[in-house]
This record gives sequence, structure tokens and C-alpha cells, in this order.
Amino acid sequence: MAPKCILLPRDEMPRQWYNVLADIKLNPPLGPDGNPVSPDMLAPVFPMNLIEQEVSQERWIDIPEPVLDVLSIWRPSPLIRADRFEKALGTPAKIYYKHEGVSPPGSHKPNTAVPQAYYNKEFGIENMTTETGAGQWGSALSFACSQFGLNCKVYMVRVSFDQKPYRKAMMETWGGQCVASPSEETKAGRDALAKDPNTPGSLGIAISEAIEAAVSDESGKTRYSLGSVLNHVMLHQTIIGLEARQQFAMIDAYPDVVIGCAGGGSNFAGLAFPFVSDKINGKEIAIYPVEPAACPTMTRAPFVYDHGDTAGYTPLLPMHSLGHNFVPPPIHAGGLRYHGMAPTVSQLVDEGLLTPKAVTQTQAYKAGLLWARTEGFIPAPETTNALAAVVEEANRAKEEGKEKIIVANFSGHGLLDLGAYERFLSGEINDVVFEDTIIEDANALFAEYPKPASLKSV
Amino acid sequence: MAPKCILLPRDEMPRQWYNVLADIKLNPPLGPDGNPVSPDMLAPVFPMNLIEQEVSQERWIDIPEPVLDVLSIWRPSPLIRADRFEKALGTPAKIYYKHEGVSPPGSHKPNTAVPQAYYNKEFGIENMTTETGAGQWGSALSFACSQFGLNCKVYMVRVSFDQKPYRKAMMETWGGQCVASPSEETKAGRDALAKDPNTPGSLGIAISEAIEAAVSDESGKTRYSLGSVLNHVMLHQTIIGLEARQQFAMIDAYPDVVIGCAGGGSNFAGLAFPFVSDKINGKEIAIYPVEPAACPTMTRAPFVYDHGDTAGYTPLLPMHSLGHNFVPPPIHAGGLRYHGMAPTVSQLVDEGLLTPKAVTQTQAYKAGLLWARTEGFIPAPETTNALAAVVEEANRAKEEGKEKIIVANFSGHGLLDLGAYERFLSGEINDVVFEDTIIEDANALFAEYPKPASLKSV
Repeated sequence: MAPKCILLPRDEMPRQWYNVLADIKLNPPLGPDGNPVSPDMLAPVFPMNLIEQEVSQERWIDIPEPVLDVLSIWRPSPLIRADRFEKALGTPAKIYYKHEGVSPPGSHKPNTAVPQAYYNKEFGIENMTTETGAGQWGSALSFACSQFGLNCKVYMVRVSFDQKPYRKAMMETWGGQCVASPSEETKAGRDALAKDPNTPGSLGIAISEAIEAAVSDESGKTRYSLGSVLNHVMLHQTIIGLEARQQFAMIDAYPDVVIGCAGGGSNFAGLAFPFVSDKINGKEIAIYPVEPAACPTMTRAPFVYDHGDTAGYTPLLPMHSLGHNFVPPPIHAGGLRYHGMAPTVSQLVDEGLLTPKAVTQTQAYKAGLLWARTEGFIPAPETTNALAAVVEEANRAKEEGKEKIIVANFSGHGLLDLGAYERFLSGEINDVVFEDTIIEDANALFAEYPKPASLKSV
Repeated sequence: MAPKCILLPRDEMPRQWYNVLADIKLNPPLGPDGNPVSPDMLAPVFPMNLIEQEVSQERWIDIPEPVLDVLSIWRPSPLIRADRFEKALGTPAKIYYKHEGVSPPGSHKPNTAVPQAYYNKEFGIENMTTETGAGQWGSALSFACSQFGLNCKVYMVRVSFDQKPYRKAMMETWGGQCVASPSEETKAGRDALAKDPNTPGSLGIAISEAIEAAVSDESGKTRYSLGSVLNHVMLHQTIIGLEARQQFAMIDAYPDVVIGCAGGGSNFAGLAFPFVSDKINGKEIAIYPVEPAACPTMTRAPFVYDHGDTAGYTPLLPMHSLGHNFVPPPIHAGGLRYHGMAPTVSQLVDEGLLTPKAVTQTQAYKAGLLWARTEGFIPAPETTNALAAVVEEANRAKEEGKEKIIVANFSGHGLLDLGAYERFLSGEINDVVFEDTIIEDANALFAEYPKPASLKSV
């Protein structure tokens, strides 16, 4: 029996995160005055120890012992050979996946929720606030806060709050509090409700509510937390790729292609960045971030300075963006419905170190269904986008007759998203056409914005 | 960092199941005439290779290579130290759990669904039928059938079908078919609907529908499958306990107490039987099957001959039973709502080798919530019953000042049962009083039935 599953012994779990900022240069975030944002301007929002991590250029950053201890509930995650999927595709490619669905909330999100909760606790913070769209991030932060005795408040976009009641139940089971956004609890929420009492809400409004709730607590004991996009989030996720590299070394192998889906970019970066570092050092390897064709930031949108949120409260970040006022169509991979992309991932795309791919929604569900029926584990809708790119690459390997090694990030399971599969099976899920006018509108929006410089790391 | 998780290398996965029938004697199942049932009387219902396994008294039975191959998608399952739970309880006990929630359907059920699908396929069967209550078993069989290219039809009790639509979606994602029971597709279903068009259905009716669908297929290519109670089901589950024994050997330890929840008995037996075998051979060890106080077969009901289903279609089985016409109250641990108990487990209780415990529903949810907030993984409602008994035992160890080693079976996660947690958190879940008249009624029912002989194995 060939080893289906490569398990890293627990005592060989990585003890440091890899910081890609040691290897690439980033344009700085800009404040309202067009000047770079200083760390203390972020102090009301994030604790200083995380802000320091956000701007650090140290290559290796120690993972604190109490964080390792909680991560070891489910880490190291297994690297698994998808031999049944290979057989169904009739490909000579060897497909491996890193199974991040084994965490208590079922996705990669707690890899950063746990250290974020830890650093907030260390800094003397007692309450954390955040927003959540489909619910994965809010669940992960609730779980992490339960481990460190912090209160957790999650503003969940109204439409998802109503459609996915199990997510709220999950957060409450871990002791978190979950309210529908817009809520009556913040000015941002009340303003949104005054404008439209029946609004379905948006991630932009929910972010504004969570930030407002954090900065307006006069005790100073509350901070906000973000689950993607920022540098320290990417940093925490690199444990995925560091483990994967060690696991490939255990079987004397190294991947030819690395694949992950990308919304804000964190699960992709988590698997890919350690391999990006190898690539910068001369390794030949192809690295694909995969996005929905209905929300194509990397494959279609310009590389610009834009706000991270819809209301424009955040600093300007250098990234691929469809414009902060772009509302992505209601595709089922809620975690990939974001107008921008992490600055680190955007920079690497701009430098040609990453090769972004876009896949359609039906392509994604078709791949997800084949996966479930061969490999067993039902992927989250987001994850199916990565799997669709795996199918394309496996078919290419077949045409070329090459025994390529492909590794994909299985960013989460779909057990709380089964309704989407049912709709796909009954033919209710179709592809969304992306209109060229969206790019024209974005370019018009950005005409007046500062432009990121063209930097080259390599 | 102490090892949180004891991982058995994949190449040391057990290659044989342990058959408890080599160590204990059972009263035979009886037919309608009161005589023992012969294997060929079961041939229209089950394939002969499984019937042979049902009556085998061989101590060790080889696990076929293709079954090992599918089980290795998630097995060996981890044995995990619940150190956070220990700390919260302030107990000197060392608590370990076997995490069976890591399988694709999220419970221990595929441990038997996979070999059952395999043996049916080997016997030339093309279609399998079964019933499911809360949905765990139907999901597991759909998954297993997808692995061997079999069609799977699941009759799901109407009330659960309506309340838990994600379960149907899960079965369909794996290519299974799921219909609400009673259905128009069988005589048993049509009769039930004629009697009451608005019936919520019952496990008894669903079993009748699934058996009828199997035996009435004139092609001879359809068989029925049961997810608990029978000897071959217990056999397949012993891989849990065999792995656990090896994992304890890896850390030079051996448990003092073994705990599992028991509805039909299969997850409990899976963990416990290898330790029962040690106990028969002189090891000092306490073994607790745990049932809901609202459906107390082992702790209250007599040891009798009774039917396995409500309609009385099955042979008479020697077991602890509350009477096949007893309808357990609608507690949330749907998998534990069964009037009887596996004959093997019942026999071991009768001989005093097992010490059954009963816990209340609120005790169970309280333990489950503490577990989620310390160990992270959210337990299935069934599993919380085992955890409640772990709490009792850990508190006893505290009173006695003893460093006992406790091992529990974490039979499944609760991600598709989060609604129950929400109801518990909002105070909607209360305890159900078990009326003594139920035992009086059962004894009256059994007055005319044959009596099992008092056998002693040891």
C-alpha cells in the first residue's frame, strides 16, 4: 500500500513563520494625506505587537509556545496523495493536497485567528471584534478567543446571517457573539439601516461596524481583527507551506506546480510563500493563485492603490483591485467575493513570480463533485476553485505525457455549505458573465489615485 | 511540548478485525417459529459473505486490501490527549479520546459502511438500500458506495428529512439517493401513508421500506444494509479499539477506564471490544457504555428476546430492550434513540463485563459545550453522552486523588447538528423524565416471548 497520507511528526512542526517581506519589496500603505501610514496610526485598531509584525522584515519569526500548543490540536495537517482523483482524471500527474479542513472550525482560518487572539491577550486586550461574510472567519476567531479567554464579537453580513444560521450557532458554541450587520449597535450600522432598512448588508459595512466597535470602546481593551489581506495574516498562514515542504522532503519529492484559491489571498499565500522563496532562490516551480472568473482581480484588474473596504476607512493599499465600490456577484464561494487582493500576493503577481488563473463557477463545482466522489472529503465552495485549476493542470500533464507533481491547498471542508452542492446538482448554479465595463469603471475610479511604483525584488 | 496527539503510522494500521464472538457465547437469533434462524434465511436481505461474517467465531478476520485502502483516507484516526478539558475540570485523570470525526462523513459509521459496500460489490450486488434517522448512517453508506461504484438508496425518517436538509445534500453529493420515509415507493410506505398521510415517520417504518426495496428487486442485484446492532457491524468497528491499544502501547500506557456512548452499540463496541478481550484475559479495566437516561436500555430494561424493528419483521434478537413498540422521546441525540441494544453488548452487560451508565440530556450538552470550548472540536449530540460520563469519572478521580487514564470514543463531530447547540444555549433543551410504566409495559410485552438463556463466557 503506497502511503496515502504523509504525516509530519508533531515534534517536527515548524517553530517559526516565514516572512515573505524579507524577500520582496512592497509599496507602503498610504494615509488620507497620501503619505505612508505610520505604525502608531494603526494603534487604536490593532495591538502594537501585531502592528510590529505587520511591518517586520525579519525572514523568520518565532511562533510563541502557547500558539504552537493550540495549533497542535490539529497541526501538522496531513499532506495527502489524491490518487483516486488522479485515476478518475486518467492523468500521469501526481496530485497532493494539504488538508486544512481538519481544524475545529474546518478551514485554514484558525492558523491566524489563534496567534491574533494570543497577541491581543498578551497586549492586555479583553475583547475582539471582527466581521464575517460566509462565516468561516468569524467561526475561527470565536474558536481562537475561546482558547485564550477573550470575548469575541462578530458582525455577520445580514444575508449570510439569515441564510446560514449554523454559522451563528457555531460561533456561540465557542462562546462568541454574532450579530447581523448592519446592526443598531454602531453609527455605521444605524446609518446603513436609515438609508435602507431592508439592506442585505455587505462586507464593507460589516468591517466599518467592527472597526467602529473596537476604536470607540473607551476602556482601550478592545481591538479589531482581520482574517486576510494584511501581511501578518499571510505570515501566520505560512505554516501550511512550511509543513508541506517538510512533508515532501520526507518522500524525497518536490512539487512542480503549487495551487491555491485566492479571495483576499491568505490560504493561497500560506501554502505558496515558502515555495515562492525557493523560486526567488532559483527553483523552477509554477505557482497559481486561482480566482473566480466572476471576480477576477489578478487576471483582469489593474495594480493600483485602493481602499481595503467599501466605505474607504482603511489606508490605501497597493493591490490588484476591481474598485472598492465593486460589488461582486453572488457566487457561492463567498470567501472569494472580494474587490481587492493582498498586497503581497498582488506584488508577486505584478513581478511575474505567480501565474494567476481564473475558473468559472460551474468548472469549480464540477471539480468539487468529482473530488467528493473520489477523495471523499467534500470541499468548501472556495476550495473547489483551486480543484478546478488542478483539473486543468492534470489534463495538461496528460496531453504532455508528463509525471508532474501538483500540490493544492484544500483550504476547508464544505459541510456547512451543502446547500450550494444541492443547488448545483439541481442545475440552479450558472456562470456569471464578467462585463468589461467593470474594468473601465475601475480605471476611471483610479485615475485620480496615487500609483504604486514598479518594484522588482529579484 | 507533551505529545497532544498520538499518531499511528499508516503502515501499522491493523490488518485484521477482532471478533468478540471468539470470546463470548450468544443466544442465537430466533425465527417466527421460535427456532434459530439459519444463514440462508437471511440471503435475500444480506450477501452471503457478510452473513458468514455475522456468524463467524474466528478470533481474527482479515481486512481486505481494497477496504484498507479506502479506510486509509482518514485512518488510523488520532488518539488525542484532552489536556485542556482535564485542566478545566481540575482533575488528576489523564483523558484521551479517539477522534472518529475525521472521516469524510464525520463519524465512525464509514468503518463498517466501507467493508459492507465492498463485500456487496464482491458478491455481485449493484444496489444497496438502507434507512437513516438523523442521517449519519445514510451519509456514510452513500460515501462508501461512491468508492465502489454502487448505487445507494436511503430511506430517511420524514421528520429528520425535513429538519436536516443538509444530510440529503451530503448523500447526493456522494451520488446517493435520499427519499423521505414513509414514501410511495414501497408497500410498507404506502400503508403507513394510508394510515396517516401526515406521519412524521419512524426508524421502524424506514427499516421496513429499505428491506422491502431490497428483497423485492427481482434482478437479485439489491441488498439491504444495517449500520449498527449486528455482529458484523461491531466486528468492523473494532479497528477503533485495536488502533487505540497500539497507540497506548506507543506511549507505554494502558487505560483504566474505557467510555463510549451506545445507541445500537457500534461505536462503543468498536472502541471497547479489544479491551473487553483483555479484561476476559485478566486485565483490570472498567468499561462503560453510556446511554441517555431518556432511553435506558442497559441500565433499566430487561434482557429479553425482541425484534430489532418496530414492525417485527426481523428475527428475535437476545438483547436489552424497552420493547420494539417503545418510541423514545425526541431527544437530540437521534442516534441513541433505539429501543434495543446490540446482542453482543447486551450479553456483556448481562455477564457484568461492562458497567452501563445513563446520563441526562442537559448533563450531556453541558459536557459537550465545555469540550468545544476547551478541546475545540464540536462533538455530535450522541458523543456528548460519552463526554458526560467522562466528566463524572474525572470528578471521581479528583475526589479519590487518582491519576486514572480514561479513554473515550469521540464518535463524530456535530457540525451538522449545530441547531441543537443553539437550542441548548437558549435554554430550550430540558431533561425528559423516564416513566417506570415503560418498564412495566415492556415486561408485559415480553411475558409471552422466549427467554434468552443465562450464558457465561468467563
